[in-house]
Amino acid sequence: MIKPKIVMVGAGNVASHLAPALSFSGACEVVQVYSRHIESALALADRIPGATATADVGAVIPDADIYLISVADDAIAQLAEALPKGDALYLHTSGSVGMESLAGLSERYGVFYPLQTFSRDVELDMAEVPLFIEGSTDEVESEIRGFAGQLFRSVYHADSDTRKKMHIAAVFGCNFTNYLWTLAAELLARDGLPFEVLRPLLEETLRKAFVNSPAASQTGPAARGDRRVIDGHLSLLDGREKEIYSLLSDCIMSRRSNK
Amino acid sequence: MIKPKIVMVGAGNVASHLAPALSFSGACEVVQVYSRHIESALALADRIPGATATADVGAVIPDADIYLISVADDAIAQLAEALPKGDALYLHTSGSVGMESLAGLSERYGVFYPLQTFSRDVELDMAEVPLFIEGSTDEVESEIRGFAGQLFRSVYHADSDTRKKMHIAAVFGCNFTNYLWTLAAELLARDGLPFEVLRPLLEETLRKAFVNSPAASQTGPAARGDRRVIDGHLSLLDGREKEIYSLLSDCIMSRRSNK
Repeated sequence: MIKPKIVMVGAGNVASHLAPALSFSGACEVVQVYSRHIESALALADRIPGATATADVGAVIPDADIYLISVADDAIAQLAEALPKGDALYLHTSGSVGMESLAGLSERYGVFYPLQTFSRDVELDMAEVPLFIEGSTDEVESEIRGFAGQLFRSVYHADSDTRKKMHIAAVFGCNFTNYLWTLAAELLARDGLPFEVLRPLLEETLRKAFVNSPAASQTGPAARGDRRVIDGHLSLLDGREKEIYSLLSDCIMSRRSNK
Repeated sequence: MIKPKIVMVGAGNVASHLAPALSFSGACEVVQVYSRHIESALALADRIPGATATADVGAVIPDADIYLISVADDAIAQLAEALPKGDALYLHTSGSVGMESLAGLSERYGVFYPLQTFSRDVELDMAEVPLFIEGSTDEVESEIRGFAGQLFRSVYHADSDTRKKMHIAAVFGCNFTNYLWTLAAELLARDGLPFEVLRPLLEETLRKAFVNSPAASQTGPAARGDRRVIDGHLSLLDGREKEIYSLLSDCIMSRRSNK
């Protein structure tokens, strides 16, 4: 099997994890990194044997097999328009942008969406990240799957609609929970306690959610319907914190009474 | 140092983790387990060398050094009243019950509160659980600290007020986040996707929250102020889910604009 030649379009958080992992997995040959910031392009290309860097979209290699576009959602369509045209495969890595944004370029396009939170300087085992793909035709999707499967252990099909709902699920599961941890950390800080004291509890809570299901492992005063404790807590809160405590407790209690 | 003789009063989730761990750590000698259900008392006592079981509070050993009361919040005071009186140390393990509920029994009493979520059949490294203690006098608190320190790696002082605020923080950090995971799991299930697809994302989110702080690692559409994505998500939600999405997004955005 001949390795496809890939141009990595973008050098942000996602690209800087994806490109080296794809290269080292042997799934493809990353031949070039484009970024509008040459420093970023150079920094990433430096980590990939055989890759060059450019900040000039007109200098992007024209005969690549795959153009993998990993830039801000708003920039995808415009940047795609500026890429070399041909029978290459054009992919973007966004959870919330439809596949159709690449439709004008070629017959062969699709989505390559890794469901994870990426920070540039934090190492990750990419193989464990679930990858969601979509192809403009069945044949294109098979092609994406074949090449993705050399790196990712879990590759799922997800159309644009499913990807959007997955993104909503991720917002609830990850962004909103992180915000609640922020509130918890602030509550503790007022008593001089470090957020670290909650670590064993939070790790165990997450572990349990995957052992059974989060619904089955719900605990706490609202799950027990313990109005006395809930009212005691509400009397110590105000503003947004009180509003959130009240709404979420009501939700948990109404679920309880529906059982 | 002579090992204190402990009677474990209760045989529920917390007691069934605490008693064997205390015994095997060498911190004390668990001589008896009381539970109003003899099956529970026997099952727990069976796991502890030298411990007997009883369901008759009148048969509780009168010359123990410590009575460790780990029962439902509402039952603590009444059960404590029925225990043998003397100069023993009386402790309860509750996060939300004041120390004063044990004041009538003795001059020596206090609180022994492990901050963790316990499930009877799930093994836990108790040494890693943060323990919060409070004693009726400084001398009593030193005594509790000395004996607790043989098992728990992190022992903190927390008065009843601090314990209550810690409990609120735990509700935000653990009960409410688990509820959001329940919603996320349901959103995914509607598209036939397993909750498991979010696992790497949630584990990484939790890990990052402790690397810096949850406030510093907030991501997502609300943290970016991306109204277009937020409105798109809201248009796909209704009822409680929409209400929660809207409130939490507003909170995250208002925090953003206050920076």
